[in-house]
Formats: sequence, structure tokens, C-alpha cells
Amino acid sequence: MAKELKNFTKRSDNYSQWYNELVIKADLAEQSAVRGCMVIKPYGYAIWEKMQRQLDDMFKATGHQNAYFPLLIPKSFLSREADHVEGFAKECAIVTHYRLKADKESGGVVVDPEARLEEELIIRPTSETIIWSTFKNWIHSYRDLPLLINQWANVMRWEMRTRMFLRTAEFLWQEGHTAHATKEEALEEVRRMLDVYAEFAEEYMAMPVVKGVKSANERFAGAIDTYTIEAMMQDGKALQSGTSHFLGQNFAKAFDVKFVNKENQPEYVWATSWGVSTRLMGALIMTHSDDNGLVLPPRLAPIQVVIVPIYKDTEGLKAISDRVAPIIGELRAKGVSVKYDDADNKRPGFKFADYEVKGVPVRIAIGQRDLENETAELVRRDTLEKQSVSLVDLADRVVDELADIQKSLYNRAKAYRDARTFTVDSYDEFKQKIEDGGFFLAHWDGTTETEERIKEETKATIRCVPFDGDKTPGVCMVTGKPSAGRVLIARSY
Amino acid sequence: MAKELKNFTKRSDNYSQWYNELVIKADLAEQSAVRGCMVIKPYGYAIWEKMQRQLDDMFKATGHQNAYFPLLIPKSFLSREADHVEGFAKECAIVTHYRLKADKESGGVVVDPEARLEEELIIRPTSETIIWSTFKNWIHSYRDLPLLINQWANVMRWEMRTRMFLRTAEFLWQEGHTAHATKEEALEEVRRMLDVYAEFAEEYMAMPVVKGVKSANERFAGAIDTYTIEAMMQDGKALQSGTSHFLGQNFAKAFDVKFVNKENQPEYVWATSWGVSTRLMGALIMTHSDDNGLVLPPRLAPIQVVIVPIYKDTEGLKAISDRVAPIIGELRAKGVSVKYDDADNKRPGFKFADYEVKGVPVRIAIGQRDLENETAELVRRDTLEKQSVSLVDLADRVVDELADIQKSLYNRAKAYRDARTFTVDSYDEFKQKIEDGGFFLAHWDGTTETEERIKEETKATIRCVPFDGDKTPGVCMVTGKPSAGRVLIARSY
Repeated sequence: MAKELKNFTKRSDNYSQWYNELVIKADLAEQSAVRGCMVIKPYGYAIWEKMQRQLDDMFKATGHQNAYFPLLIPKSFLSREADHVEGFAKECAIVTHYRLKADKESGGVVVDPEARLEEELIIRPTSETIIWSTFKNWIHSYRDLPLLINQWANVMRWEMRTRMFLRTAEFLWQEGHTAHATKEEALEEVRRMLDVYAEFAEEYMAMPVVKGVKSANERFAGAIDTYTIEAMMQDGKALQSGTSHFLGQNFAKAFDVKFVNKENQPEYVWATSWGVSTRLMGALIMTHSDDNGLVLPPRLAPIQVVIVPIYKDTEGLKAISDRVAPIIGELRAKGVSVKYDDADNKRPGFKFADYEVKGVPVRIAIGQRDLENETAELVRRDTLEKQSVSLVDLADRVVDELADIQKSLYNRAKAYRDARTFTVDSYDEFKQKIEDGGFFLAHWDGTTETEERIKEETKATIRCVPFDGDKTPGVCMVTGKPSAGRVLIARSY
Repeated sequence: MAKELKNFTKRSDNYSQWYNELVIKADLAEQSAVRGCMVIKPYGYAIWEKMQRQLDDMFKATGHQNAYFPLLIPKSFLSREADHVEGFAKECAIVTHYRLKADKESGGVVVDPEARLEEELIIRPTSETIIWSTFKNWIHSYRDLPLLINQWANVMRWEMRTRMFLRTAEFLWQEGHTAHATKEEALEEVRRMLDVYAEFAEEYMAMPVVKGVKSANERFAGAIDTYTIEAMMQDGKALQSGTSHFLGQNFAKAFDVKFVNKENQPEYVWATSWGVSTRLMGALIMTHSDDNGLVLPPRLAPIQVVIVPIYKDTEGLKAISDRVAPIIGELRAKGVSVKYDDADNKRPGFKFADYEVKGVPVRIAIGQRDLENETAELVRRDTLEKQSVSLVDLADRVVDELADIQKSLYNRAKAYRDARTFTVDSYDEFKQKIEDGGFFLAHWDGTTETEERIKEETKATIRCVPFDGDKTPGVCMVTGKPSAGRVLIARSY
């Protein structure tokens, strides 16, 4: 199995196949018996739990509280906001009946036609409608604002072409929904949460992102503006990793949510929503991993360091275990998650390959000779470099290596992205270069027509107008019409 | 509002109405626009999060890993296990279509009849079937066992009569699903997880429970045996608070899950499943709360102590805040969750009433006079007793009070239950006494007929055969036939 684990398709041969194989071989997820729905396996779920915990802490630190709203949404709710229904009421799972009955013919069960719902229920594709119908009861006065709510939940969109983590019919996510007394406050919230996402992506996922605003075409259905963080994968394609929406008063009007302001006047509430999902798992995998398997940034690795004893007999193992025990204790006291793998039904070579495929950041092997010399062999997953290290200060050394790996992964990803980010002024040059992937900073005339032409001719889309982009006016690379500044264009997931 | 908050129905007047009002007034949950589905509000969800975190730690400490399986289950899966389909494939939410389309007439959306699923999908009422269809791919050899999996998820059962937390169409829960090489190992797991539930109920919820095994009639659909923990509510009714099932080889056979044993022979796997749900919120509320509102055990209270400054002006507030700041720091360092409520838009009296209704275990008020005397007023939620305490060792004092409240609540609940637990030998006496509620230890002949007769005539059911019950043989109180020991009988939620 050790060999088979390493027998990957190479990224350079077929990036897409490499990704699909990696998800399976690193034991992250697998297809289920239900079309488009995946099973998230324990190792994959452990990474998602680390993401969740960190994001949840960040949401709470910015004043948000968790709550839980119903899975099912009455069909009529979706139609309340005109753009929203356009975007979400198409491909979705629809509950029409509430009872099965025995089928004498087949011996199985069939839908009981008597148990038809008066109004169909939709499995939530997103929860703005059900939440704003609830907010109506919660908001009366300016004293009830801001209302800062988050929900961790499963959602469902009936996608036709699915890929594990990147696009699945059911996925896990968090959705923040907030209500504010003023437009300014709502806009601040939209930006604050985008910054939280960017900080999480860069500091925890070690994944550099470009922050910006979406074009009208790429906005969330029902939003006035959508802010986004965009990351570059190793095939040069962009992955939208988190979005934060300014919803204006659209949902307040659709669900008649007003508050009495300090001047005792009724006003519609201002809204935001923001979310990240298990899609981040796809982004994490594709940003750092290599032809040998998964590479995990230490801050999100369920196992940060694995220690493998190499022994001939029980006595040999005992000698190593005794020497290693205080080091493990020291590592745990420093908050490092350690696995000591002394299982005797797998050979060391198999273990090494397995932890490599699973992206464990630091691997330490200790044999009889090492023990005599008070040393160990340390291998970093990011560089696969072997070093002989002293047992005496091993815990401190591991902590340093983990910090260095976290930083190096970010720097490597950033260097990769920067080297593949191009400023272009000619559409011909763009059309040629886009074939190799990459981010392109180009002038665009701001029209949907031009945007759609670019998409049709090159499969690339406007990812965002970067907040800190070049705001010097110029001329659109496609039409020659005036442009207010450069936008980020790329092919994307 | 302070007065209104306290204007509850009394438990003695109408226990059921008291409960419904409490859920609303303590801001725990509310009905949603979707029949039978509740919205769990931030304060209620914060309690659930504390439960989740503690249970999750206990599951991990006993070797379990989390994973995630699809929300939707193919209809045919439910029919694979004969008893299971009987129990679960009746009232459930059925997805029949996957697309809506614009309706020109109404301007809304309608189900697209073209988008009918070939096989209907059921929103999981429990996940044995989808999980065992997955386990088939994960289990090949004895080396793959035991497989110890847990899932945190939402599930749905189309209940006709719902009550918040106690019985809702959608609810949140965890479901453990494990696979073992031997019957003995599976039985050990079933008992281990029941013990985990009992420990959680008693040590964290401060709720005493009776552990035992269900009668055939009350078993989980598809189980060989169901173990349960039963708690007594303040109306003398039982609430089943957690169950752990020995599934034998039923699901392994239904989904053809075999492993190769050490002797290289194929064998069917042995299974368990176990779960607790947001129903525990109902149990928590009904075990401790009183006519003034919620009473929370400190270990599950989102806010363990609230400090309310009583001041006339900004300077007065500043003097109190300065003196209190280091005490708050000390409390937080000791792991106590503190809220310092210096909001100036609510009067102290309102705050006191609000925290009382919300069950905050310890409330501290500090005024100008207190500051001069280096004292504060401390009120325990469980006794509503006021004490003057010194500011000097306040943090230590609060820690002691919290520990004492946790213990007192358990002792109080246990004394309440013990005083209402009766040993009866006469069916007439039982029929008379059951009208006032309570637990009854009585002899039963072990037949379903007698069990059903008791239920019909008294609305009471056999809650369990207690593990540590009286095993002295006797005669059934109903039929006079031989009985192997006393069983626990009660009316229940």
C-alpha cells in the first residue's frame, strides 16, 4: 500500500485528476450513494473542525452569536426578493410529501399520495429568507440593533457537475446574517467580515488572497455589492474563497423588517450576509499539496507532528518510548498535537508514506542508534528535507519548525501567485497567456457585455475589482473604451 | 418588562404552559414559519454549544472520531432492514423534485414536473442506513475494527404534535455509529456510551438518571437491545434522555458488511449506535427551573456570573468599574465566564429580573455604599438568597458558590426524584398513585400484552429494567404471573 499511496498522477500531467486522487488517498472524503453528495471522512472532518473552531472564535471576538434556523424554507419565501429567487430557486431539493407507506407489491415503501404538502418546502440553498422572516420578530427598536447572528449549517444546491469539496450538492458552511440601523454600519460590517476571512485565509490556511468587490454580474443574488477573497490555485486558476454581501434594504423590504429610530421614526433595516464553506477544504488542498500528497499548514493540521519509533523487539521499543515520553509531554504542554505511532502491524516505511500523503507537517523517526546518540531524524513535509536533530531540545526545535513551515508555506504560495500575476493591456496578449492560467490585471470598460464577451472567448471572468488595485484610469483592453482602473481577471473554480 | 418577565404561569397551576412560556421568556427558542420546526435563539444555542463541546470531548476521550454523511437517504435504503423501515419510514420528509421554474400566472415559482427524481430521497430521520452503506467500503479486515464514528447533524421526523426542544420535526443531535469484530466488544461499547451519557447528565446537567434496558416494545427500530437513561421531570414524568443501541449484525447483514477475521474467515460485523439530541435542552429546563424562570447548572451556563454596577453618574460608574476590573480578570483566569453589565439604557431592577429569568447562577450587585465598605451583594439563582460578601476574596467566593450550586442542584433533583419513586405491588395502588406522577418500581410478567394493557389503562409505560434494580423474583402486579424482578414504570415525555 505504501507504494500505491505514492503512485499519484502528477500535477503537471493532469491537475484535475491529481486533485481527485489526493482527496481519496489522503482519506479526506469520498462520493456517497446519493448523487452529488460526499461523505467527509474522519481525517477530512478533523481539518474542517479546526477551521470551524478558529473561524467561530473570530466571529465571537467580533461580537457575533450563533443560532439555528430551519432546514426547510416555504417555497413562497424564495419569491419575496426578486433577484434572490432568480438566483436560488432553480436547482434545489424540493420536499413535496411527508409520509411513506408500505407497498404490498414490491415489499418496499412508496410515497403516500395522500400526504402531499399544501406548500412545497425547499431545502435551504442559503438562509436569508427564513432568517429575515424571523428577524421581523426580533427587531423593533434601534436598541435591538445591531443584530449579529451566525449559523453553522448544511445547505443544498442541486449542482449538475460536482467535485468533492469544490462543488457538491450538499455542503457545510457558516452563514452570517446581520441587521444594522445605518448603511454605513452595514458597510463596515461587510468589510470587517471580509477582513476576518482574509486573516483566516492568510494566517491559518497560509493562503494569500486578493480582496475586492465583484462585478454586477458576479454578485450574490439579492445583494447590492459582494466583496470577495480570491486565491490562486497551483494550476493558475482562481478560487473564490469567501464572500461578504451588502444587502442594502432589499431583504428588510421583502420581509417588512422596520425599526423605530432614535427620532421615533420607522425605518427599514440594513443587512449583510457572509459565508465560507467546505469549499475552503478544496482551496487548502490545492494551494499547498504536491505530487507526494497533502501538505497541511501546521495551524490546521489535526496531527502536527508524528513520532515513529523504529525498533526490533519489545525491549527496544520500551527504551525509545521511555526516552520519548517526556518530550511528548513537553510538546503537548506547548499546545502541539503529537501522535506517537508505535503500532506493530505496520512497517515504518508504510507509516512514513501514509503520514506524507496525509500532510503531517513534521515527522520524527527514532531508532536504536539515534537513542544512543541522543538524536532523531526530523523530516519537514513542505521540503521533505531530512535533518538529524538533538533529543535534548527537540520540543523547542519542533515548535520552531512548525512556525517556520507555516510561514514558508505562505511565502511559497505568495511567490507562486505573484510570479503568475500579469499586468496586460492587449486583449490578444491576454488571450494567449490565459491558456497557461494566472491572474491578469487589466482595464475593463465596466460593462456586462464586455465581461460576457471575455468569458465566452476565454473562459475567464472578472474575479474582482481589487481594493488595493491600480486605480489609474486607462482604456479597456477589449473595447478601447474608458476604464476607471485595473480589475483582476482569471479562469476560476 | 421586568414585571412581565416574572409574570409566569406557575408550575403548580399548569406545568405544560409554564414550560412553553419559559422557553420563550428565557429567550431559548421560538416557533418558526415552518410547521413543527423551531428557531434556536442565541441564548438557547449557547447552552447547546456548551453541551456539544463537553459531549464531543467525552466522545473523543473514548476514541471516537467525527465524520459527516449525506442529509438525504435513497428511499430503498430504508427498506433494507425490516424493523428499521417499520419504525422510520412512515412520517418523514420526502424530496421528489430538484427544480423550480417561474410561474407566469402567479409571478412566483412552481415545481418543475420535468425534474422528478427517479428514486425519492428521504431527509434522514437517523443515519444507520446511509452510514452502513458507507461502512461497507471502509471495513475489510479485523485490522479495520473497531470503527468508532460520531456525527453531529440535523435530522427530521414528521411529528404531528410538536413541543419546542422536546419533540420537533427537525432537531439537532449526535449519532454514534460503531462497528466491532465481536459481540462482546459491541456490547461493551453500548454500555460505555450509556455510561458517558449518564456521566454527562449527572456531572454537567446536574440531572440524576436511572440506567437500564428497554422492553422489546420500546426498542429502537432495528436494535437487538436498547439501553437508556431516564430522568424525572418536576411533574413526576420521565424523560428518556439518551439511548445506546446494540444492533447485533442486523445492519451488517442488510448492507452486506463483512470482515476477514484473524483466522482468515469472513464474518458479519457487530454494530452499535447511540444518540442524544436538543431534547436534552428540554430535560435541563424541566429538571431545575422554577416559577421565576430558568435555573442553569453552572457547568452549562453561558454566563456563570453577572456583575451589575449600581451608579448615579459616570464618575460613580468609573469608581466601581476600576475596583471590579481586577476581580473580573481573576475570575476569567479561573475559567469563570463573567458578564459585566454596565449598560445605561436598562435599570438595575430590569437587569436583575432578566438574568433571573435566564438562569444565570450567580448575580453580584455593587453600589456606592458597597464600594466604601469593600463589599458586594451576591445572589444565588438556585436559592435566590442574598448575601453580603467581601470584595477582597470575591473571585474565590464565586468559584466556591458555583461549585456548591452545581452540587446542590444535583442533590435537590435527586431528593425530588427519590421522594417520588415508589415500590408498588398492587395494580390498584399503582393506578391511583400514577395520577400524581412519579417513578414506580413494580413486578411485570415480561409480556408485551401486559405492557400494552398498562399503557392503555394508565398512560404509563415501562421506562426500563434498571441495571441496578431489585432482581428478586416476584409476581406481576397486573396478571399475577411470575416476574424476574422489578421494572421502572412511569408516564413520560
